[in-house]
Amino acid sequence: MTFALTVLGSGSALPVPARFSTAHLLNVDEHFFLIDCGEGTQIQLRRFTIKLGKINHIFISHYHGDHLFGLFGLISTFTLLGRKPPLHIYCHPEITGMVKHQVGYFSEHPGFELVFHTLRFDEPSFILDEKKVSVWSFPLKHKVETCGFIFKEKQRLQNMRKDALEKYNIPVKQIPLLKSGADFTLEDGTVIPNREITYPPPKPRMYAYCSDTKYDEAIIPLIRGADLLYHEATFGSDMDEQAEKTGHSTARQAALIAKAAGVKQLLIGHFSIRYKTIDFLLKEARDIFPDTVAAEDGLKISVPLVR
Amino acid sequence: MTFALTVLGSGSALPVPARFSTAHLLNVDEHFFLIDCGEGTQIQLRRFTIKLGKINHIFISHYHGDHLFGLFGLISTFTLLGRKPPLHIYCHPEITGMVKHQVGYFSEHPGFELVFHTLRFDEPSFILDEKKVSVWSFPLKHKVETCGFIFKEKQRLQNMRKDALEKYNIPVKQIPLLKSGADFTLEDGTVIPNREITYPPPKPRMYAYCSDTKYDEAIIPLIRGADLLYHEATFGSDMDEQAEKTGHSTARQAALIAKAAGVKQLLIGHFSIRYKTIDFLLKEARDIFPDTVAAEDGLKISVPLVR
Repeated sequence: MTFALTVLGSGSALPVPARFSTAHLLNVDEHFFLIDCGEGTQIQLRRFTIKLGKINHIFISHYHGDHLFGLFGLISTFTLLGRKPPLHIYCHPEITGMVKHQVGYFSEHPGFELVFHTLRFDEPSFILDEKKVSVWSFPLKHKVETCGFIFKEKQRLQNMRKDALEKYNIPVKQIPLLKSGADFTLEDGTVIPNREITYPPPKPRMYAYCSDTKYDEAIIPLIRGADLLYHEATFGSDMDEQAEKTGHSTARQAALIAKAAGVKQLLIGHFSIRYKTIDFLLKEARDIFPDTVAAEDGLKISVPLVR
Repeated sequence: MTFALTVLGSGSALPVPARFSTAHLLNVDEHFFLIDCGEGTQIQLRRFTIKLGKINHIFISHYHGDHLFGLFGLISTFTLLGRKPPLHIYCHPEITGMVKHQVGYFSEHPGFELVFHTLRFDEPSFILDEKKVSVWSFPLKHKVETCGFIFKEKQRLQNMRKDALEKYNIPVKQIPLLKSGADFTLEDGTVIPNREITYPPPKPRMYAYCSDTKYDEAIIPLIRGADLLYHEATFGSDMDEQAEKTGHSTARQAALIAKAAGVKQLLIGHFSIRYKTIDFLLKEARDIFPDTVAAEDGLKISVPLVR
């Protein structure tokens, strides 16, 4: 059961060959979720050999070009490839208007249904209930209305113990009930507690995505316990004022959030083009939160299953 | 005096890492002209270390996404970089509307003037008179209204012969007139023919850009004698019908046009993603027109000065 993130774009407003603008791809058991879609995202998807047709849900954090300019080309490519399934886009109404307007220039209909889901920017919201994963949005603090996203695997059922199946001669039709946590009653009325016939499933994995945002402690309870937290780190602490002014965070601030939220791993990205190397941003974060990695285009992080 | 073309994107409708969608950059003595602007053009400009600030004129052949989706990001980047000079865009009115609409989402004004010049699609037109170069548009035959472009250096003045300057003791203030072709009259009334005091300048160089178009002999007199002709070659002759149906050309057709127009060199590109290698497209063209090269992202072709 895969739960893996691929960074498609690790840069910020000014894309360069080594760092395209923001886009992440989360693979949950071969269900693909695209998060933000900067210019050239479709090229990065091909570069990192991700099948475009597996993307059915796109989440756009806010209406700044470096998070959405890749949408037009991606939708156009879906049309040219003969896509049929609906494409769900979770975004600000401004983006809905922008995409509809743009698509309208090229054809009356892109060949498949574009389903827009309007995000809320005032409070956390449950936005998608998929078979394997649930998705929430929550407000961030940026210069325009912006959302972060939380992807959480659904709680799995208990696993049956093979030895118990034989020992108690458990009928197959009872298994779904037992997997849900029920005890098993023998023919003589003896109750076998569920814990003796099952063992716990792996813990649901969780990915939290926070871009773009200034330092905001309000998000800590929402992202608590994430296996992987992406938090933007546009600047270093040398640019504290600039971060505040532009609605962005420093690497140190990202690490403070990660530490306070008790996440397992922190991924920083959205680096300002002014930094030729981001070593000191990484050091700044690791001084506070050692399990930090720096985003690079093509970086893949798999979150292991843990019981 | 540079006259050099850089291919920024050699692919067609579906961009891939090795072939971005169409964009060309013509450098005439450090005056930069961007021709078409597919998704990721700004990334390619950085990849091939071209200074963005030197671009003041953008020519868009037609309103298909693979020729214009890079405009939004490029304009946004110009704004973020604090651009001040006006940016001239030569395009279809549909594109004017599209860009204005898009820019309007992000700010009321991009920080510099966007000057739109509406192309004509019914006849060849003189569209730009620059210090070193003149630009014409001319109609192509595609599925939507499309223009090709011709960039031609201006005719230079005659060069003065140093030996003549001394021999006839020519006053400095007369030189501009003599460079324009006038004869020189000695004090005793003897007329020295211009050809004895000057020598010819290099020939004006010419670049003709034809994308996207089906085979169209009507363009031959317009592009006659070009030093470099770019002609799209989306398909091979195996796909003659598809080329006709989609308003594109085969490599063979591109070569027939090059041969008939007597150009010096043919550059083919806009290759369909179906071709894993374009060797046979190149062969097909070279069988008819040997001086053919195949476009690659980053390919630079310098046109030498010839007297």
